[in-house]
Amino acid sequence: MKSDIGMIGLAVMGENLALNMERNGFRVSVYNRAEGAEVHVVKNFIEGRGANKNFQGFTDLKAFADSLEKPRKIMMMIRAGKAVDMVIQSLLPYLEAGDIIIDGGNSNWEDSQRRTALLSENNIHFVGAGISGGEEGALNGPSIMPGGDIEAWTHIAPIFTKIAAKAEDGTPCCNWIGTGGAGHFVKMVHNGIEYGDMQLISEVYGIMKNQGSFTNEEMSQVFRQWNKGKLNSYLIEITSAILAHRTEQGAYLIDLILDKAGQKGTGKWSVINSLEYGSPLNLIATAVYERSLSSRKELRIQASKAFPRPLTLTTEKETLVAQLEACLYASKLVSYAQGFALMKEASEQNQWNLNLSAIAKVWRGGCIIRSAFLNEIAQAYKSSPTLPHLLLHPYFQKEITALLPAWKQVVADATLGGVPAQAFSTALHYFYSLTTENLPANMIQAQRDYFGAHTFERIDQPAGVFFHEDWTGKGGNTSSTTYNV
Amino acid sequence: MKSDIGMIGLAVMGENLALNMERNGFRVSVYNRAEGAEVHVVKNFIEGRGANKNFQGFTDLKAFADSLEKPRKIMMMIRAGKAVDMVIQSLLPYLEAGDIIIDGGNSNWEDSQRRTALLSENNIHFVGAGISGGEEGALNGPSIMPGGDIEAWTHIAPIFTKIAAKAEDGTPCCNWIGTGGAGHFVKMVHNGIEYGDMQLISEVYGIMKNQGSFTNEEMSQVFRQWNKGKLNSYLIEITSAILAHRTEQGAYLIDLILDKAGQKGTGKWSVINSLEYGSPLNLIATAVYERSLSSRKELRIQASKAFPRPLTLTTEKETLVAQLEACLYASKLVSYAQGFALMKEASEQNQWNLNLSAIAKVWRGGCIIRSAFLNEIAQAYKSSPTLPHLLLHPYFQKEITALLPAWKQVVADATLGGVPAQAFSTALHYFYSLTTENLPANMIQAQRDYFGAHTFERIDQPAGVFFHEDWTGKGGNTSSTTYNV
Repeated sequence: MKSDIGMIGLAVMGENLALNMERNGFRVSVYNRAEGAEVHVVKNFIEGRGANKNFQGFTDLKAFADSLEKPRKIMMMIRAGKAVDMVIQSLLPYLEAGDIIIDGGNSNWEDSQRRTALLSENNIHFVGAGISGGEEGALNGPSIMPGGDIEAWTHIAPIFTKIAAKAEDGTPCCNWIGTGGAGHFVKMVHNGIEYGDMQLISEVYGIMKNQGSFTNEEMSQVFRQWNKGKLNSYLIEITSAILAHRTEQGAYLIDLILDKAGQKGTGKWSVINSLEYGSPLNLIATAVYERSLSSRKELRIQASKAFPRPLTLTTEKETLVAQLEACLYASKLVSYAQGFALMKEASEQNQWNLNLSAIAKVWRGGCIIRSAFLNEIAQAYKSSPTLPHLLLHPYFQKEITALLPAWKQVVADATLGGVPAQAFSTALHYFYSLTTENLPANMIQAQRDYFGAHTFERIDQPAGVFFHEDWTGKGGNTSSTTYNV
Repeated sequence: MKSDIGMIGLAVMGENLALNMERNGFRVSVYNRAEGAEVHVVKNFIEGRGANKNFQGFTDLKAFADSLEKPRKIMMMIRAGKAVDMVIQSLLPYLEAGDIIIDGGNSNWEDSQRRTALLSENNIHFVGAGISGGEEGALNGPSIMPGGDIEAWTHIAPIFTKIAAKAEDGTPCCNWIGTGGAGHFVKMVHNGIEYGDMQLISEVYGIMKNQGSFTNEEMSQVFRQWNKGKLNSYLIEITSAILAHRTEQGAYLIDLILDKAGQKGTGKWSVINSLEYGSPLNLIATAVYERSLSSRKELRIQASKAFPRPLTLTTEKETLVAQLEACLYASKLVSYAQGFALMKEASEQNQWNLNLSAIAKVWRGGCIIRSAFLNEIAQAYKSSPTLPHLLLHPYFQKEITALLPAWKQVVADATLGGVPAQAFSTALHYFYSLTTENLPANMIQAQRDYFGAHTFERIDQPAGVFFHEDWTGKGGNTSSTTYNV
């Protein structure tokens, strides 16, 4: 009996996804190369976690391909990069027009964009699917962001929607994202937003601890409380658990963990793309930079000695908790607004036609940034699909307006009190720039024209007409195209 | 008679550099292709600006190469990118071991790194030289940042140091930067710093105008005054001139310039590299993002209507001027410290052995960021070549400590008053994070271990030993390498 789908790559993500599919009633062929240390991978799986289930195991690609129902649906869970291209090339001889290849790895979206176009020439439908939720999500229900060749969607939708996490209202956390590399792009932004959320929570923690002298138990309680409100989310929930967690010896583990944050590079991708698309992503950039700075512990110890700075500010605990809840919520809103603005910009430039409401829905379950708040975002984009900016939706406009007094008070207090609050302050000042009709950027344009003849537009002249001024009386009237700044 | 140096590319930069060389006593062969619109370029130059001078003109590469003293010194001033590789390939048949090719264009430093290695295989010495100062600098004295194959330096140093700008103490603004792509890397950071300086000045302007209700003449006077002090620099000087500049009709031109700042992409390169090297560059990133946001004028008008925000804060003018001078100086220090930290990091990773003191000196004249302040930076790195961070030098440590009260007051007032001050605030909060011994990044590490088993170090255990906690009592003790966040 032919299998419904094939899985290439039996590392833990591929294995767990295959088990998830089989548990949901699908027959799965699994393939892994049998070289070196991987010689027994397939055998071990078929005799181990896959025993007595609807699996067929292969170490030969042709036999694997022959075991699949047509059109073949083949998912790869392998290392991103060249390996993906190599496996695709090895597969092609055994495929027919109409077959489907799905890359579920952490691929760069531009690779997925390229592969979709390349394979369509062979009449093979390619899908680049961002998958979030880690090992546990893969097994029990991930958030899935498939993009690429939409011809594939009707064939894979039954499987993907079945294995995906379900939001609280029962909706599967999987939806078609868009053409080309859209799926992996959206996954990338998801990861960036995750960096931002974590940075914001760490700033709350730092302020409560240093400015409010909260105990771990008190902080755990605050996060537990917030998790019942608008901030309800997985990360708030685990933060509460982390703060209350003790070692076997009874010490609070959080106090023993070194403050050097690691990163594996997925956050910076979002930031690099925001620069390429010219769409500000200050909050996530801050999160990436703060992790880098945190890892330079020796430098910080030295700097802290050079600039001793006693914490002078204390705020009454109850007031601080209310202020911080507002500050966290508002800053988070800015971060998501920036992330969605980037997706909107990329969608327009790549003609992906992203459905921002559907994306917010896909993130409601199975992934690290799952939260109640995404319901509101989904709702906002559903009611106003062409919304120019998330904060301009009446619902969020009202929220932000109410949050603003506490938000700016937290930033001002941290600023005067010497407490690091880089993400909170960058969120607030982005909001200020965004909502300022006349920015002082006219000065930048004047300077660029002064030293480089880069020209400027005038407010008393039609848009799109550029002027150059002879500022010194010495220059000519030719404008420059050579000094590029 | 053979020429001392050859110039390929007679667009305005190449033409002006050639004229600069000839004026300084060197014989120059010039080459330009004679295709399409460029058919008469060489002839026009030789009969025009180059008439009756020590020039020889060529449209044939072999004749051009034959006209040069050996070892040949050939400088290219052509469009960065593939054209550079093409011209190099066309030249090679006419060159001999020991000849020198210099790329003075705005090339990506990684291309220069690659070309240096590639040409050394042919025993050709390649130099990637960043050149700053635009057309006027090219003619009258640019800042030159040559890097690549040091074998070339003794041959080109006499010419380059002669044509370069001179700092106030008479030192040429040209020095050997380092191997490989070091020259173009340093030029890239220079451009990023220029973005930062301009953003900072625009924030000063915005705060004075909106929070202090200064007139243009008053602001012009303030900048003129500052230009006599520690902020003395070209950009402060032209800002003063810009503010006083009137149209023929008598209106202040600055008030008529549209606040949409353009950019040609060189700022974002620095930021992308800072992400790749994990070296925070918040201030320049902010400058790039603020330009992007400024260009979204329609969105900002809409947002300003959704969030009406009367400016409530006014500060007494004299106080504000003093505070802003401190704030601008401190923020500028942070920006330069971040830029130099990035160069230090890249130098270590690429083994360029950058001389940070020499780089500061090269920037003292001929380029847009020239300033008195670079003397202090040169001095700091001269007295402490292994300084871990610019702000830790005793001189700057003292400066920052004195500036801090006013700096944080400006940021706090802008924060409470609703005035955009993104660069000022990001500089201050970077300073806070840098000087904080214990950051709340332990929370980020706890979260990463909780949801992805990414492990953490402990303060009560040796560095470099990583732990994973079974946070929920359900997980195993294996750590994850697959969920990469």
